[in-house]
Parts: sequence; structure tokens; C-alpha cells
Amino acid sequence: MKKKVTLKQMARELDVSISTVSKALRNSKEISEDTRDKVQAFAKLYNYRPNNIALSLKNRKTKTIGIIIPEIVHHFFSKVIRGIELVANKRGYNVIVGLSNESFDKEVINMEMLANGSIDGFILSISKETLQQQDYHHFNETISQGMPIVMFDRVVNEINCDKVIVDDILGSKKAVNKLIETGCKNIAIITTKDYVSVGRLRTQGYLEALEEHKRIPESRLILKVDDKLVSEDHLEVLETEIELLFEQNKDLDGIFAVNELYAIIAMKVARKHNKRIPEDIQVIGFTDGVLSKHATPSLTTVSQHGQKIGEKTAVLLIDKLENEDEEERYQTVIIETELIERESTK
Amino acid sequence: MKKKVTLKQMARELDVSISTVSKALRNSKEISEDTRDKVQAFAKLYNYRPNNIALSLKNRKTKTIGIIIPEIVHHFFSKVIRGIELVANKRGYNVIVGLSNESFDKEVINMEMLANGSIDGFILSISKETLQQQDYHHFNETISQGMPIVMFDRVVNEINCDKVIVDDILGSKKAVNKLIETGCKNIAIITTKDYVSVGRLRTQGYLEALEEHKRIPESRLILKVDDKLVSEDHLEVLETEIELLFEQNKDLDGIFAVNELYAIIAMKVARKHNKRIPEDIQVIGFTDGVLSKHATPSLTTVSQHGQKIGEKTAVLLIDKLENEDEEERYQTVIIETELIERESTK
Repeated sequence: MKKKVTLKQMARELDVSISTVSKALRNSKEISEDTRDKVQAFAKLYNYRPNNIALSLKNRKTKTIGIIIPEIVHHFFSKVIRGIELVANKRGYNVIVGLSNESFDKEVINMEMLANGSIDGFILSISKETLQQQDYHHFNETISQGMPIVMFDRVVNEINCDKVIVDDILGSKKAVNKLIETGCKNIAIITTKDYVSVGRLRTQGYLEALEEHKRIPESRLILKVDDKLVSEDHLEVLETEIELLFEQNKDLDGIFAVNELYAIIAMKVARKHNKRIPEDIQVIGFTDGVLSKHATPSLTTVSQHGQKIGEKTAVLLIDKLENEDEEERYQTVIIETELIERESTK
Repeated sequence: MKKKVTLKQMARELDVSISTVSKALRNSKEISEDTRDKVQAFAKLYNYRPNNIALSLKNRKTKTIGIIIPEIVHHFFSKVIRGIELVANKRGYNVIVGLSNESFDKEVINMEMLANGSIDGFILSISKETLQQQDYHHFNETISQGMPIVMFDRVVNEINCDKVIVDDILGSKKAVNKLIETGCKNIAIITTKDYVSVGRLRTQGYLEALEEHKRIPESRLILKVDDKLVSEDHLEVLETEIELLFEQNKDLDGIFAVNELYAIIAMKVARKHNKRIPEDIQVIGFTDGVLSKHATPSLTTVSQHGQKIGEKTAVLLIDKLENEDEEERYQTVIIETELIERESTK
């Protein structure tokens, strides 16, 4: 018997992208007729079963929620999953987790796989590559076939679904305000490139806080790290860039980092430069993970309440699953952030 | 149409445990005939589809590996998953992750769900509750129905399958030898209760290292923490117990902790007691996670090479899946640990 062919194998055989195969199978007009015919013929030949969500939805309830997250080595995502599980278990649902590893292709593959009868709905956070490519067809197709999606943290306006986000702008403003109020004159931000939506919003919060205090933002104090060059095992690039920030700004007395790891490395560099924390320089991070809590000095940080986010996404999804007749209305829930003050600030 | 009933719902309705339902459905002689009849009748009435692994195996290859881990907020497990993914992706497989949350029931439920046609085989690490209850029927049934399992880290002899483990005993000996060789006279171990197999083995390594150096182990220096009382958000119990260890042993000059968190908290307590690290007291942990790397001082630790473990489990599982005719032979692969020396030791 022929083995079942996967999206990935079809893409390789036909020398096109996974996105193209996925779109062609759905007869999307974005793909040339020629390519569509080719892909569809190939799929038929190899007995590829496309994603019959609508069919499977009618036939059974799996009582299972599919979660797709970009990264597993990430305290925030773990907390969100814990929150989802808490609500899911209470209401009789199970969860399974797929990982996109920040890759567009893996996100598409995982959704195809899970949507094929294993789950009732998705809770997900978009991969960085998908955000960069701005190709959201797999989300829209899934929703239009009747399978609900709830997105959290990394979301985009273009997709009609329930969303749970943190007030990234307000959270950043809380952090920068704290630095200003405790006397910092030259506050740097260590952030990501702008295509990462949460990085962009946190940068915006930093700029707004400065402006509200009649301070002029200076480009020398804004470090945008290319997150693709930074992994937990390769922190040298990050450290070198932060070194440079310190060397070029001898007057630096405050740092706001848009995540925990950036903040921890910034504290390390500060120590190397013999700057005392918080006396000479204050540091605030974003995301309240184990590193913030156990660092020396412990890190003041903006907590996103990951567990609360997870709980809310699960409530939204399960409500939607259990009230199928309701008209389509989507909401965006904002979970408030909180500044947790520890030893790295005055 | 009737909704599909779950194992959990059946257990609740019939007021028996999930394990009983699961065994009764398989007609296990461990369960009384009366209960078996009741469960089977209920399952039939509510259209419960038991786990037709053998059937689904014949019909299709999902090219998907199911991973079941006890905890997601755990750097070691994240590393293992990364290793599994690396090999799986190279060989054309996808992975999905289920979480047991250290619960026996959730482990059984997750395996039932995934084995129902979603995956080709399992890679898993046993939950603490399962180890404590010593009820392994769900593993044995799955294997006997023809679905391969590879276990890692937390394994038991009673189950016939491929296993990947670390040399916990040898790893601990490396740590304790280092402490002895650098002059420690009174070395404490902070470990778990014995039912957690890795904790038990690491304690054994500690005892053996002492004996090989003609030292007599002293119970006052052995702290066995009840891991069920310790969670990342409730570290007070752990801290109090370690405080007590310090107060009752003023001569303490070396600590070997069987995981990273215990070691980090021990360093915190040492600081409170004005003991300098490593001058007055040396500390070594087990598991090389982010906390060890970024702690101040950074932590000397026994690295388990989680990624390597993951890679090996994936190789074993995929080899088994792709060579079905081979006779049943199981192997246990031991991945060597390594002592990573940092600032917390001399």
C-alpha cells in the first residue's frame, strides 16, 4: 500500500514551497492555474488527504485543544500552557502541543496535522517567520472551514478571531516611567527588530514614555537586536552588541530590555564595566521568568501574567466550541501587565 | 448525535479510577468481572472507541512522533524535545507533545488520545505519580499492541522497550569527587524522596563517592525534599528546609544538589548565612539549564546533554518504525554526563 504523502514531501517533489502546495490544494487564486493543477494531480496520485476539517467537525468532538507555540524553551509560553491546561482540565478538555520553532513551514505542517481530526480548535501564537512573511492563509482557511482559533501575544489584525494580548505599550511605559521617576537621565532600550510585533509595541511604549516626559528619544540609545542571531546557546552576538552600547554611551544610567534574557545579559555587561546595580545603572526587563527571580541582583520586570493569558484563551475557545449557534463575533481581550519591583531598580 | 465519551467521564460516571476503566476496557484480569462488565457496557452505550492501535497501524503511517513529558516548565525536557525535533525533521517526521503534569491519570489519557491514530510511536519520560503507583499497564498494553515506545531519563526495568538514560550514578560521583578533591570535609546532598528514580540514583552516586574515599555518610547531611511540596511558585518550603540544613550543620563546606533549582536556592541560603561561594562553601548542581549559566556566581553542574538524549531517542524510535520485520530486541543506551566547571567551585 502507498504510504501517505506529506505536505513537505509534495513541496520537495514539485520544487515549490509548502505554502504554495497548501494554497494550491485549496484552489487559491493566488497560485497559477498550472501549478494548482500540478499540485492537485500529485496529491490525488499519492492519495493525499487534505484537511477535511468541516467533515471531521460534524462527526465528532475530540475534546482536545491544539496549541501551537513558536518555542518550547521559553518560560512565558510554558506559563501560558499551564493556564490553558488549568481551564481545559476543569472543563473536561485535553491539550496537545505542536511547535513551530519560529518557522512558517512547521507552523503550516503542524496545523494541517492537528486539524485533521485530532482536535476541536486551536490556541496559538504566530511564528516570527510567519509575521515576517505576512502569509496568513493557513489561519484564515482553518477559521473559514469552521474550526475556531484563539490567538495570544503575537497576533495580527488581518485575522478575524478571538485574541488575548498584553498591553505591551502600557507595560513598557510603566517600566520607563519607573526609570525616569527614580532619576535616570540616559535610558537605553534593548529591543528586537520591528517585525516582531511585541518588540515593536514595547519600543513604541518606550518612545511614548520619553515623549510624555518631554525627553527627546536618541537613536544612540536604541539597540535593535536581530533576534534570529540570538539563541540561548549563542549569546555572544547579543553580548557584543550590548558591550558596544555601553562603550558608546558612557553616561548610560538606565536600561529597559524587552525580554528577560536581554536584561540578564545587560546586567552581566554592566558588572564587567564596574557599574553597580542599581546605584550606577538601573535595569528593568519584560516577562517574569525564573531568571528574573533568581538573578543576582534580582530583576525588576514587567510581568505579563502568562498563566492568566492562557486561562483566558482557553475560556474563549471552549465557550466558542460549546456555543456553536452563536453569531460570529470576535473579541480582543487585553490582560494588564504589572511592574514587579526587585533589586535591580531603586 | 451522541458526543464521544472520554475515559475521564467514564471514570467519573462509574465512580472508579481512570486506571480501572482503562484496564477493564482491555479485559484485564486485575479487574473484577463485575466491574469489567459494567465498564464495557457503559463504553458500548456511549459509543466509546477504544484504542485500536493495531488497526490504525496497518492502515496508515502518520509520520508523527508523540512525546509525553511530565512537565513543560523544565529546561531539561525542552532540550530533549529540541533533540528529538532535530532528528525527526531530518528524517521527515513531525512531533506533537502531550503533558502528564506528573499525573498518572493524565499520562494514561494522553496516551489513549495520541495512540488513537495520530502517531506512529511514543517517546516519553514517566510521571512521578506513575513511578510511585508502579502501575505500568498503559505502557505494556501499548507496546504489546505493536506501537513502539522509547523511554528516556525516568525509566523502569519492568517495561520492555528501548531506553535512553544518563549515567546518574557516575554523574553524581563526578560531582562529589570534585568537591572532595578541592578540600570539602562536610558535603551535604540535597535530593528528592527515593521514589523518583533519578533522585535515588544520584543519592546512590553520592554515597558511593564518599565510601570510595573512606568517608562515612552522615544522615544529618542528607536532605530528601518532598518534591510534591515544591513548585517553581512555592519555593518557601524548599528554602526553609535548606535553611535548617545550614543551621544544623555549621561546618557545611560543600553541597551537591540533584537539580538546578535546589542548587540555586542553596546558594541563596549560603549568601544569607554570609558564606562566600566558593571560598567557604562550594556548590554543584545537576542539569545544565539557563539558571546555572546565568546565576551569580555561575553554577558548576553535571550536564546531562538533554539534546543528545533527545536525538538518540528519536534515532531509536524511527529506526524501529522503519524496520518493522526485525525481531524484537531492546537496548538501553547510556548518555555520558559531563561536569561543567564554573564559579561555584574552586
